Order: sequence, then C-alpha cells, then structure tokens
Amino acid sequence: MSRQSASWLDGTPTTVLPLPDRGVDFGDGLFETILLRAGHPLFLDMHFARLALGLEALAIPDCLAAAQQQIQQVCSTIESACRWAVMRLSVLRSPGPRGYAPAHGLAPRILINITPLERDCDNMLAPATLNQAKIRLSTQPALARIKHLNRLEQIVAATQAQADNVDESFVFDQAGHLVCVIAGNVFLVCQGEVLTPVLDTCGVAGTRRRLIIESWGPSIGLKVREARLTLADLHSADEVFYSNSLITVRPVSSSGELSWQDHSVCNALFNKYREALV
Amino acid sequence: MSRQSASWLDGTPTTVLPLPDRGVDFGDGLFETILLRAGHPLFLDMHFARLALGLEALAIPDCLAAAQQQIQQVCSTIESACRWAVMRLSVLRSPGPRGYAPAHGLAPRILINITPLERDCDNMLAPATLNQAKIRLSTQPALARIKHLNRLEQIVAATQAQADNVDESFVFDQAGHLVCVIAGNVFLVCQGEVLTPVLDTCGVAGTRRRLIIESWGPSIGLKVREARLTLADLHSADEVFYSNSLITVRPVSSSGELSWQDHSVCNALFNKYREALV
Repeated sequence: MSRQSASWLDGTPTTVLPLPDRGVDFGDGLFETILLRAGHPLFLDMHFARLALGLEALAIPDCLAAAQQQIQQVCSTIESACRWAVMRLSVLRSPGPRGYAPAHGLAPRILINITPLERDCDNMLAPATLNQAKIRLSTQPALARIKHLNRLEQIVAATQAQADNVDESFVFDQAGHLVCVIAGNVFLVCQGEVLTPVLDTCGVAGTRRRLIIESWGPSIGLKVREARLTLADLHSADEVFYSNSLITVRPVSSSGELSWQDHSVCNALFNKYREALV
Repeated sequence: MSRQSASWLDGTPTTVLPLPDRGVDFGDGLFETILLRAGHPLFLDMHFARLALGLEALAIPDCLAAAQQQIQQVCSTIESACRWAVMRLSVLRSPGPRGYAPAHGLAPRILINITPLERDCDNMLAPATLNQAKIRLSTQPALARIKHLNRLEQIVAATQAQADNVDESFVFDQAGHLVCVIAGNVFLVCQGEVLTPVLDTCGVAGTRRRLIIESWGPSIGLKVREARLTLADLHSADEVFYSNSLITVRPVSSSGELSWQDHSVCNALFNKYREALV
C-alpha cells in the first residue's frame, strides 16, 4: 500500500461515494476505527461485537458477514510493509430514500478506508494534557454505547480542544457526570480500584475499554468497576488515563490545576496490550 | 428538468461525492429542505437565516454567498415545467481530515439535490394520524434549533412511525415535554391561543414555524406563543397541526384516543401561505 489513504466501497476500490446516500444526508450509519498491524486488523472480534449492537439499535440489516469478507479481501491486497495503519469501516444504511424513514430491502453500503500511520503503535504515547469540554453530552439511551455516525458533539468539543491547545478533553453529561474523553474512554485509579464511567445514557463503549474491563485489568490483578463519576472523583484520583483503538491507553499528566504523576496502571495495561500482539 | 432527481456539487452536476468527506464520516454539516415552485425557491431568506445560525454554531466557514449563487445557477438551468420540486441544500464541512478535529482553511462543500414532487403543494394535505414516538429527543442546547446532519433520533422515530402505520409522530424530550413532530414543528390551539414548544434544548426551528409566529399568525389576528408543553396540553388542545417546508401546515385528526375535528386555524394559515405565493 502506498503512503496515501485508499478507499473501497462494497469491496471495490473507489475515490467517490455515489449519491444519494443516507450517511451523507443524516449520518445514518455506524463506524469502527480499527488498528492494522502489518496489514492485520487488531481485536476485530471486539469491533464486530459493537457493530452488531449498533446494527440492531438502528435496525440496519445485518451485513457483518459481508463486512468481514471485505475486510479480509482488502487486507490481502495491501502491502504489509506498512507497519501501522488505521482502517475505518463505515456501514451506511442505504442510497436514499429522501426523508427520515428508511426503505426496506436495501442492503447497507460498506465503506472501508485505510490510512497509514506514521507513529509506531508499539510505544505508548507520552502523558497527555487535557481540558474540560464546554459542550456536555446529551442524554440518549437509545444511541448510547454504539459507534454511530452522529458525531457533532465530539466535533464541537474537538474544536475547543484544538483552540485550547490540549491533547484531549474530559467530557461530561448534562447532569455533570464524567463520561469519556472526546475520542476514547476514561479510567480513574482511586485507592487501588480502577473506575470507568457507566455508559447507559451517552458515550461509546470502546473496544479497548472492554478489553481492559474483561481481560487486561483482571490479568494484572485489577478490578475495573463501572461507576457514576463526577469532577470530584477526578480531583481525588491517584491516576488517570484514557483508551481508544489507536493509542490503546495513554496517561493523563494534567488538566488545569490537576496533575497526576503516577502512570503505573496505564503502563501495566499497555504492556498487556503488547503481550496480546505477540 | 426530468422527473429524476439531480445533484450538483459546488455548482457542477454530479452523481457522486468525492471521498473523504466529513459529512459521511461524522454527519459534520447542515442542510435545508427548500420547496421549489416552478423552479423558484420559496422563502429562501428564512432558510438562509437558519443556515447562518448553523454555520456559526458549528464554526463552519461562511459559505452563504456561494450557496446563494449556486442555487440561482441551478434554478436557472432546470425546467420550470416541473411545477413543484424539493431542493435539498447540504453544507458539508470539508473533505477530511480523519479524526474529530476539523482542519482550518478548507472551504465547505455545497451539495444541491433537486427531486420533483408529484403532489400539488397548492393544496393542503388531508388531516393526519399521529402516534407518540418512543424515542425521546436528547437535551443539547449547543445543537438545538439548527438543522444539522445528525438525524438518527428522527430516523429511529420515523422507523417506528412506519411500523405503526401513522403519518407522523409527536416527539417529546427526555423530561416529557412536547417538542415537535419527526419532520416538523407542532402547534396547539388552546382556548383561542396558539402555542408551540420552546426550542431551547432540542428540536429544529422551522422556517414555516417562524413565518407562522412572525407573519402569518399575526396577520389573521392570532398570537402565537412559545411555551413549555406536555402531553396534558395535547389532551386539552382544541386544534392541533404541524408545519414543515414541504407541507406548509397539516391538520392532525387523531393520535391514539385523542381526536380533533376543528382545523380552522390550520386552514387559515394555509390560506396565508397561498396568498404569499401570489
């Protein structure tokens, strides 16, 4: 694969999306951001488990087998010389119709994009500086946990983070609960316990979050508990880090007047990720 | 113009959208649904006033002049033989970048689609049957009133409406306040006063809603007041109707056990619309 980004629509190389498309019209679809290592998608089962939940929540016809087959096909054609790349898998509901009501019997479109990464994902990123996002996530249980294409809240927050010159932002809900960072899940180490926000009304249930809760955390003797967290918990946390599919985990060094020097849990989890790759 | 739908990207006829595009990736953009009468866009100033608010809210560069010019150009090339058509104007933030943070200095894309309408928009639609949407709109003041591309809540509601075989749905917010219908604004006539929901935390501020509040209502001696409404207000309403740019206004005849026979205010407002066209 060249150093350029490349796209495939329903398995065929493309540079365009035929119109109309409900992804463009309404953000009517889902996506996954999948890390590729030497052309091989990492933790694909986790991505597909979340995608399955999203298809069900949005009543989009099951296209998991087709997506899996197209990912395999695309990965077989790219050069594994490119050590790290990001694959974006988008499932777009259908080409039309106009109006909010979906049509029956149209197969979803599967759009795959691969972009090489310059960064070596074998190494953990340096501790991050965060701010607090001014925009608060809206309460919407019907769309919580799934990775859908309606991402304006994240874009508004990311625009502020850019202006504030920070690496990421803590994001809260309308009631003031800590939910996540803009592009990832957040974890607090409080008195030896690892806490991460409950995601019943907003937020995305990250694949690495699930790995940390179910596998990597327990394997290093950590209990990870979902909890209703607030700014006060950030103040009392001994260590803070966040996760997503591209960085795995990254320590947080500071946010405003808060700072954290201990990154030991984050380091240990990153080591579990590296072991999982071998 | 043929009876087929046609599209233009940045003024050039097209059938495709070049990738990447943040509209597809994140629903990062805005749209307007504009009624065309004999090739002439109706109430375009109202659409542009709302579009301007949306561009500001999302920090998308001002592209109003370009959009206006492209609409004029497109309208001059279509056959006015097609009496009624719908123009969808989409403003897509930019082609990339990947990730939530927008890039600086990229001009928005302007996507125009025109689809002929079979229906004669000079005649008011027959009274509608509504249900209540199960999904409740999320509280998000930062995105309220503007017509952005994140429309999954409307799609979930429209999917239910389709299954329930109703024309439209009353939509409520998380606190149980009546906000709108899926694709339009809602009005209740209560003891001679016309009430419509406040849209400070969710909902779209419709162009016809504004015309009704500022112009058509007052011109027939009606005061239209924004209020915090609930299901109880629907129960006590003497007349109920809704509005959008394609139907103008449409009476509601029933919803579950509720029914309304009086459509006189709705009729009077539709007549004002017809007068405005002359």
